[in-house]
Amino acid sequence: LLSYGHYDVQPPEPLDLWESDPFGPTVRDGGLYARGVADDKADVLARIQALRLYIEEHGRLPFKLKFLIEGEEEVGSPNLAPFVRSNADLLSADACLWEGSMKDEAGRPMIFCGTKGMAYVELRARGASYDLHSMYGGIAPNPAWRLVQALRTIKDENGEITLDGLDDLAEEPSEKDLEAIDRIPFDDAALRGSWGVEALDRGLAGQEALREMLLRPTANIAGIQSGYTGPGAKTIVPSEAFVKMDFRLVAGQSPGPVLELIRSHLKKRGFDYVEVVDLHGVEPAKTLIDSPIVGTAVETWRDLGHDEVIVYPTIGGSGPTSLMVAELGIPTIMTGSVANVESRLHSPNEWVRLDDYFETIGYFARFFERFAS
Amino acid sequence: LLSYGHYDVQPPEPLDLWESDPFGPTVRDGGLYARGVADDKADVLARIQALRLYIEEHGRLPFKLKFLIEGEEEVGSPNLAPFVRSNADLLSADACLWEGSMKDEAGRPMIFCGTKGMAYVELRARGASYDLHSMYGGIAPNPAWRLVQALRTIKDENGEITLDGLDDLAEEPSEKDLEAIDRIPFDDAALRGSWGVEALDRGLAGQEALREMLLRPTANIAGIQSGYTGPGAKTIVPSEAFVKMDFRLVAGQSPGPVLELIRSHLKKRGFDYVEVVDLHGVEPAKTLIDSPIVGTAVETWRDLGHDEVIVYPTIGGSGPTSLMVAELGIPTIMTGSVANVESRLHSPNEWVRLDDYFETIGYFARFFERFAS
Repeated sequence: LLSYGHYDVQPPEPLDLWESDPFGPTVRDGGLYARGVADDKADVLARIQALRLYIEEHGRLPFKLKFLIEGEEEVGSPNLAPFVRSNADLLSADACLWEGSMKDEAGRPMIFCGTKGMAYVELRARGASYDLHSMYGGIAPNPAWRLVQALRTIKDENGEITLDGLDDLAEEPSEKDLEAIDRIPFDDAALRGSWGVEALDRGLAGQEALREMLLRPTANIAGIQSGYTGPGAKTIVPSEAFVKMDFRLVAGQSPGPVLELIRSHLKKRGFDYVEVVDLHGVEPAKTLIDSPIVGTAVETWRDLGHDEVIVYPTIGGSGPTSLMVAELGIPTIMTGSVANVESRLHSPNEWVRLDDYFETIGYFARFFERFAS
Repeated sequence: LLSYGHYDVQPPEPLDLWESDPFGPTVRDGGLYARGVADDKADVLARIQALRLYIEEHGRLPFKLKFLIEGEEEVGSPNLAPFVRSNADLLSADACLWEGSMKDEAGRPMIFCGTKGMAYVELRARGASYDLHSMYGGIAPNPAWRLVQALRTIKDENGEITLDGLDDLAEEPSEKDLEAIDRIPFDDAALRGSWGVEALDRGLAGQEALREMLLRPTANIAGIQSGYTGPGAKTIVPSEAFVKMDFRLVAGQSPGPVLELIRSHLKKRGFDYVEVVDLHGVEPAKTLIDSPIVGTAVETWRDLGHDEVIVYPTIGGSGPTSLMVAELGIPTIMTGSVANVESRLHSPNEWVRLDDYFETIGYFARFFERFAS
């Protein structure tokens, strides 16, 4: 059995929104707050503690348990692929437990059988060689406007992705995956409540929103910056502008070809002055929803008294799971539930419930027992 | 004679682009570098020095010279209007010399007979109450995308302003103004060279670019910000986004009505979630190009040996000149030439030539002689 996790974390900014030191773990009201505690440090530690628990109980593990723990997951695991490829024998396994899953808003454990791919790019535009007085606003090239015009060709006025050729790459989802999605008790009201929004993007709701999240690619603006952004007014034509975008990809959409789509899409529309910088990419990956490892994960939760376990064909997020699934041929799932839907992964005040952490230790110990038998 | 100037300056950021301390004036190669030296400190001081020069020569000024020097011009002069209105008698004058003009790229003095108005707004959008993991990128409201969609309705894909009703407010330029513009030796190649760009916005060139700058409103993005903008990749759906915009306005377009246009334009298109914050506004203003004060300014330059003096019906920039022109009925022009076209007003490494500064002192002293006679 192979276990994959990572100890690196996202940047903690914006720092002023943290209620306690991001890198000084703090317990408040049964919750443990720290950058990376949910994604993915507590999950890594829960598995190690589960192994200790198992050994205390049974003396010795009757199968090989391999821990692969890296420190570059949040930047696209640039060195994982060469490592995996040159250590295929060392990593061989019958199944892989990918980094942890979570509990949904009703406390039900979630199991994920796949991950989306990702193409993370920065689009950059330049105007004059220095910021100009905005008296020239009518005649000076404005890189912020240029980016807005370029971006607008990637999503239409309804928020639908209009990137040339992206849909053509996507593989059709299987019947079993579609059925599994229909069975997922997706509570968009809870999500909206947690986020504090009246509606999801484009008014999506219920199963339609779920299918959008799991089966469709995204073209997300993660950050944009140009010109003067301090308090009050400054009247300039900015000299440069950039936008950071992550495109989450579904089966069939590899980051390399998608990067080329983005470049040719912009070039075709005359945005030659928009530079497309490749920051990182990762392949989408899928494990069959009826693989034995999925059954083991479900049954283990039932052993712990969780009658309802929700199996997702894939997750909206990404990770280098394709290295296991496609390169090594190892069925790979995400299970365990240190985190919950309000754990604020990648955001200020990231946290987990201590109760969930302790239950997950027991979960993995029990999982090892089932896997051994 | 009334003289208007200001001692406040734009924010000095980005600080790392300054070659010397923005607030520690530095002389390099005959140039004086400091934030505000061109806009508008050296001009204010040149007029005071000219008065000293005149008094040394002639003993006493045979007319009343009134200095109005404020410290809020760069934030829209919020207290100037009430001051002017309650001190109309104190400020009464036959003519007003507004803050300084400059020399063009060929060293010709420029005289401006009007200023554009301005509506400076911040458009703000909100998404979830905190940054979300971008696995939700397909279903979470993204305020950066919302702003892009909203902005795109303000300029079309060709960069033309499409704000409902803005053009309808504009007054037709006079024949004399159009003729004056045709006489201006506008060198867009020099401007492009100074800016380091291959083309002006929308491929504008020559007199067409000049008419665009002087006779048309702008919708300029002065700054935009959302989400993560540090190095590398962060995968979030940002919780908020804002854009700072200055709309430079021509005769007929008052900032109040334009603000309402922006609000109703966005509302009509369903962008109710975009908040339009009024940061400041100023009225456009025009002095007739054949006013006596314009002739005095031209003749004074000729006295100093400048055969070519370029009279602009208006400038692309703004200022509270309408308080003099419209409220007090005083013909108002911009003359003097401490600055030049490469003085980087509002930008790092703002500077003036010391030679221009000293010549401008002589110019105003001579102007006072002509005005007295």
